[in-house]
Amino acid sequence: MSRIAIRRLNSRQSDFNLQLDQLLAWESVSDTRVNAVVDEVIAEVKARGDEALIEYTNRFDRMSVDSMQALEMGAERLQQSLASLPDAQRQALEKAADRIRVYHERQKGESWTYTEADGTLLGQQVTPMDRVGIYVPGGKAAYPSSVLMNALPAKVAGVKEIIMVVPTPDGVVNELVLAAAALAGVDRVFTIGGAQAVAALAYGTQTVPRVDKIVGPGNIYVATAKRAVFGAVGIDMIAGPSEILVICDGQTDPDWIAMDLFSQAEHDEDAQSILICPDAAFIDRVEESIQRLLPTMERAEIIAVSIQNRAALIEVADLHEAAELSNRIAPEHLELSVADPQALLPEIRHAGAIFMGRYTAESLGDYCAGPNHVLPTSGTARFSSPLGVYDFQKRSSLIMFSAQGASEMGKVASVLARGESLTAHARSAEYRILD
Amino acid sequence: MSRIAIRRLNSRQSDFNLQLDQLLAWESVSDTRVNAVVDEVIAEVKARGDEALIEYTNRFDRMSVDSMQALEMGAERLQQSLASLPDAQRQALEKAADRIRVYHERQKGESWTYTEADGTLLGQQVTPMDRVGIYVPGGKAAYPSSVLMNALPAKVAGVKEIIMVVPTPDGVVNELVLAAAALAGVDRVFTIGGAQAVAALAYGTQTVPRVDKIVGPGNIYVATAKRAVFGAVGIDMIAGPSEILVICDGQTDPDWIAMDLFSQAEHDEDAQSILICPDAAFIDRVEESIQRLLPTMERAEIIAVSIQNRAALIEVADLHEAAELSNRIAPEHLELSVADPQALLPEIRHAGAIFMGRYTAESLGDYCAGPNHVLPTSGTARFSSPLGVYDFQKRSSLIMFSAQGASEMGKVASVLARGESLTAHARSAEYRILD
Repeated sequence: MSRIAIRRLNSRQSDFNLQLDQLLAWESVSDTRVNAVVDEVIAEVKARGDEALIEYTNRFDRMSVDSMQALEMGAERLQQSLASLPDAQRQALEKAADRIRVYHERQKGESWTYTEADGTLLGQQVTPMDRVGIYVPGGKAAYPSSVLMNALPAKVAGVKEIIMVVPTPDGVVNELVLAAAALAGVDRVFTIGGAQAVAALAYGTQTVPRVDKIVGPGNIYVATAKRAVFGAVGIDMIAGPSEILVICDGQTDPDWIAMDLFSQAEHDEDAQSILICPDAAFIDRVEESIQRLLPTMERAEIIAVSIQNRAALIEVADLHEAAELSNRIAPEHLELSVADPQALLPEIRHAGAIFMGRYTAESLGDYCAGPNHVLPTSGTARFSSPLGVYDFQKRSSLIMFSAQGASEMGKVASVLARGESLTAHARSAEYRILD
Repeated sequence: MSRIAIRRLNSRQSDFNLQLDQLLAWESVSDTRVNAVVDEVIAEVKARGDEALIEYTNRFDRMSVDSMQALEMGAERLQQSLASLPDAQRQALEKAADRIRVYHERQKGESWTYTEADGTLLGQQVTPMDRVGIYVPGGKAAYPSSVLMNALPAKVAGVKEIIMVVPTPDGVVNELVLAAAALAGVDRVFTIGGAQAVAALAYGTQTVPRVDKIVGPGNIYVATAKRAVFGAVGIDMIAGPSEILVICDGQTDPDWIAMDLFSQAEHDEDAQSILICPDAAFIDRVEESIQRLLPTMERAEIIAVSIQNRAALIEVADLHEAAELSNRIAPEHLELSVADPQALLPEIRHAGAIFMGRYTAESLGDYCAGPNHVLPTSGTARFSSPLGVYDFQKRSSLIMFSAQGASEMGKVASVLARGESLTAHARSAEYRILD
C-alpha cells in the first residue's frame, strides 16, 4: 500500500478559518427522489397498515413473506440467540450491559415539589414514556452494542414496552443483535426496516403497536422518514458520520493516537478523524504511525478513503487554542490525550463525550465504559446531548394553588391577560379572587 | 346570540372510541406550496444573507427598509418600552418574571461524577448553550408572557446571548413585547419574521448571528422552516392548537368550569376544550353556564366556533376512568377540579401541566404561577415536556480511565469490537491492556 495524503493545517495560516470550515462542511441532504419515496411509503403504511408493510418488506428486503407473523421474532427465538453465544462474547456483552445500566441509573430524573408560604404547591412530575421503538440497521452496520445503548436507557427510565425493528435483507439475521436484544430486555422484535418500519412505529398497524418515540440510526431513507414523522412521535437526533477529535500534548505514544484516529475512520468513508496538537514534531510522528500501521488494518481501504478525504492534523499554539478550536468543532468524541486532562476540562464547552487521559481510548466508550455511545454528530453537540435516560422520561408541571395564593396571583394574571386582550383568561382568574 | 351546539359524549356509547379519535384528530400539514416557498426562502437567506433578509422582510411584512440597521432594535429602545408601561402592567410583569425565575431555577441540571474502585472516573458535564434564538409572532398573537416564558429559562440556564426575532408587519410594533424582552434580559432584537427569520438564525447572516437553538411559536411558514433547519440548529416542539382538559367531580361552580373552557377556546378557532365528568346533571349545568356566559365574552365569535367545532363534554363512570381517558388524550393543560387532586395525581401519566384543585385556574399558569406555559400539544405530552431550563443546557459524558481500569475494560472492548469486525477499535483498546 502506498503512502496516503493526509491534510496538515496550522492555525497560524491566514486562510485557516476558511480551510477549517471546508473541512467540517457536512450536510446530509435528502434529495427529491428520496423524499418522494419516503412520503409514499409513509402514506401507504398509514392507510393500509400490515398489508403495505409486508409488500414493502418483500420488495426492499428481497423477502417473500405473506403474514406479519413471519416478520416477528418471539422471546424464545431471542433467548436462543443469547444462549448460543460463545462464552467470551456473552460475558463481555453482560459486563458491558451491567456498566451501561449502572451509569445510566445516575441520569434518572426524579419528581420534585415545593410549597410556598401561603400553601401553594409547585413542582414537576417525571414519568417514563409508555412505549418506545428502537431502529437497528441490518447488514454490515448492525451492532449489538447499539442495541444495548439504545434499549438500556429506556429500560432504566421505566419504559413499559420496547419494540425493536431490524431489517433482515435477503433473510440474513444477525444473531449477536438478537442476543443483545434479549439481554437488554427488548419486548418485541419485528424484522422490518426502512421508511416502512418508521411509519409502522409512528402510526401503528394492526400488528405493530404505535410507539411514543423512535430512536436509533439508519440510512438516508430512515433518517428522512424520522424527520417526516417527528411530531406524531418523538425522535432522537438525526446522526451524521461519526467523528473523533484528539487533542494531544505530544507525549502519548503516536501509535496509540494513530489507532484512535483509525477507530473512527474504519466506520465508513465519511467518518472524520482530527488531531490537534501544539507539537509539530509529534504530528510528524503520528503521520509516520498512520502510514506504517494502515497496511496492517483489516479495514484499510475504508480507513484510507476516510483519512484522505476527511482527516486533518492541525498544529496550534498551545492547549488553550486547542480547546477553543474544539469548541468551534463541537466534536462527537473528544479525546484529551494530555498529562492533566482535568485542568483542561473547564475550557471544553461543547462535545458529545470527553475521553480524558492517555489510557482512555475512545473505543472503550463505544462498548463498555458505561456512558452512551449514541452521541451528537456534525457539531450538534452545541445544542444536544448523548442519548440518555432523560430521552425516555418526560415532565409534567404541577400547580396547586391555595385559596389565598389563587387570589393573589389572580390579580396579577388579570392585569396581564387584559393586557393581551384575553378576557376569558382574565375572568377565569378573577373568579378565584377572594372578596 | 343563539344557543350553540356542544358535542356530548358518553364513554358507555359503543362507538365512543371512534368518536374520541375523530374529536382528537389533528395534523398540521405543510402543503407543497408552503414547502416550496420555505425551501426557496431558506436557500436565498443562506446564500445571500442580509440582502435576501431585507428583500423578504420588505415583501412579506410590507416594509421598506434598505439596511439591517433599520431592522434591529437597540437596548435603549427596549428600555424605553419598559419605562413607558403603566405601573400596574409593569409590576404584574415583574411579579410574573420573578416567579418564573424562581420555579425554573429548580430545573437547572448540575454536573456529576463518580469514581470507581480502580480510580476510573465517570460522569456528566452540564453546560449551557452559547446563543439561542427566540421567535415571537407579530400581530394579534404577540404575547409578552410568551417572551418571558421563552427567554427566562434560557437566561436561568446561563445562555450567554439571547437573540429575539419579532416581525412588525406594516411597521406595527408591540410595546408590551419589547418591554418583556427588556425585562427578560434579551440581548438583541431583530424585527424580522417568517421563514426568513428562522433561516437567518439557523445559518447566520452578516448581521444576524447564528444561534444554537430556535424556540418559540409561529405560523405554518415558521413551523415548516423550523422543521427544515432542524439538525443545523436545535428546535423546540412544533406547536399545534392549544387545548385544555378539565376533569371535574361535579362540585366546582359550573361558571368557573365554563370560563376555564372559554380561556382555551378564545385563543383561536382550532383550540380545543374538553370536560370529563362522572356527573351528568353537572355537565348539564356547565352547558347552561356556557350558553349564558358566551354572549358576555369579548371574543365570543372565536369561542363559539372553537366550542362548536372542537369542544366536548364527556360523561364517564368515575374519576378513574376520567384519568385513564386523560392519559389517552395526553392533554397540554389538565385541570383536576376535584376535592382531592393529590389522590388522583398518581393515575395521571401524560400531561403538559397539571392544575390541581378548584382554585387553580389554568390561566394562572399561563402568566404567573411560575411553571412554563410553553407545553406539548396534540398528544405530544406522551413523549415531550414543558419548555424548561433543560432545553437550553446540554450534557457531555465524562470518561477518565485509570491504567488498571483501561486494562480491564480493554479486554471487554476487544472481544466486543472483534465481534463487530471493528479491529481498529479492538487494537486501540488492546494497546491499553497492561502486560
